[in-house]
Amino acid sequence: MFGGVIPNRPFRPQPATARDKLLEAAVRLVRAQGFSATSVDQLCLEAGVTKGAFFHHFPSKEQLGVAAAQYWSRSTGEFFASAPFHHEADPAVRVLGYIDLRIALISGPAESFSCVAGTMLQESFATSAAIRDACAASIGANARALEDDIAAALAARGLVEPRAVSLARHVQTVIQGAFVTAKALPPEAAAPAARESLGHLRRYVELLLSEEPSLAA
Amino acid sequence: MFGGVIPNRPFRPQPATARDKLLEAAVRLVRAQGFSATSVDQLCLEAGVTKGAFFHHFPSKEQLGVAAAQYWSRSTGEFFASAPFHHEADPAVRVLGYIDLRIALISGPAESFSCVAGTMLQESFATSAAIRDACAASIGANARALEDDIAAALAARGLVEPRAVSLARHVQTVIQGAFVTAKALPPEAAAPAARESLGHLRRYVELLLSEEPSLAA
Repeated sequence: MFGGVIPNRPFRPQPATARDKLLEAAVRLVRAQGFSATSVDQLCLEAGVTKGAFFHHFPSKEQLGVAAAQYWSRSTGEFFASAPFHHEADPAVRVLGYIDLRIALISGPAESFSCVAGTMLQESFATSAAIRDACAASIGANARALEDDIAAALAARGLVEPRAVSLARHVQTVIQGAFVTAKALPPEAAAPAARESLGHLRRYVELLLSEEPSLAA
Repeated sequence: MFGGVIPNRPFRPQPATARDKLLEAAVRLVRAQGFSATSVDQLCLEAGVTKGAFFHHFPSKEQLGVAAAQYWSRSTGEFFASAPFHHEADPAVRVLGYIDLRIALISGPAESFSCVAGTMLQESFATSAAIRDACAASIGANARALEDDIAAALAARGLVEPRAVSLARHVQTVIQGAFVTAKALPPEAAAPAARESLGHLRRYVELLLSEEPSLAA
C-alpha cells in the first residue's frame, strides 16, 4: 500500500483555459449523472463559460464527449505511468502495486472515484462510435499498461503467458464493476465496498501468482 | 456447465399487454443506448403503442424507469431462482453453478447480455433516487441470493463466514464490470471477453474454496 495520503483527484491541474474548464466540468457531470443527461447549458454553467466559448472549442456536444474521454485517458494515464510502483523489481509486486494504488484512490461518494470513460461507454456504445472509441481506447490503454508486468510475473513463476492479456483486462473489468455496484449503495458505503471488491481482485492475483504450474493450466 | 442451449433471453415471456410491451422496449433500448438517451417517443415506437397508452400506464418516464428496473429484477430473479444448480448438494458447486450459468447466458453483442439495472444505475444514481433504489434493489437481490450458498461453502471448508456478504457482492461486481468492458470491444469480441472475465471470477471462487484455513485469514 502507498502510505501517504493520496488526494482524491490528483490527476489533473486546476483548469486555466475555457476548454480545460469545460473538460473538467464534463468529468464532474458525467460522473454524477452521465453524459446523455448532461446538457451543453449545464456544462457551460458548471464550467463558468459562455455558450459561445463552448462552441468555439467544440463543434458539438459529441465532440466535447470525445475530448473529455481523451482528456480523461491522458491525465489518468500519465498519473498511473508515473506512480512509484513501477520502480519495484518484482513484476508481481508492480501488478499488486497498481491494484493497491487503485484501492488507495477510492474514497468519498461514488461520483468522486468512478470512471468517466466507463460511464460514457455504457451510454454511447450504440449511439456514438466516436465517443465509444475514445472511451474504449482509454480502458484499453489501462489494460495494456499492465500486460507486460503481468506477463513477466507469470513467466517468472513458470506460468504460461497467454493469460496476461486476459488478466490485464480482468483487472479493468473488476475496477469498472466496482464503480457500478458502488452506486447501488448509500454514499458512505460506496467507497468501502469498491475497495473491498478490489481487495478480492488483489487476492485473486496473489493466488494466481502463487499457484503451482500444475494448477495454472 | 449447463450443456443445453440456453436461449439468449429466456427470462421473460412474450409481452402481451401494452404495459409489458413498454417494459420490454425499455429493456432493449436501455441496453443499447441507456435510459437518459431514450425518449418516451422512442419507447412508444419500439413497443408499438401510443403515447396515450404510455401515460395511461406510467405518469412519467421516471416511473417507467422504476417499473422497468422492477420488471427486470423480478423476471431475472425468478429465472435464477428456478435454475437447476440449486439442486446440487455441495454449496460450492451451487456457487460455481451460478457463475457457470451467468457465463452460459453471455452471447451475441453487448446489448443482448448486459444488465438493465446496472446501466440505469450508472445514469440515475445522482439524479433519480427512485430509479437508483429500484436498480440497487435488483443488484442487491442478486447478491443476497448467493450469500447463503457462499457462507455454507466457506463454512464447510472451515473458513470464516463474514466474507460471504463481501464475496457475493464481488460476484455481482465482476458481472457488472464484464458488461461495461465488453462494450469497449467490437461486437464479435464482446461476449468472449465477458465470458473470460467471469472465468477469472470462477477461478477465484474455486481457489478461495480450495484454500487452507491458514491462507484464508
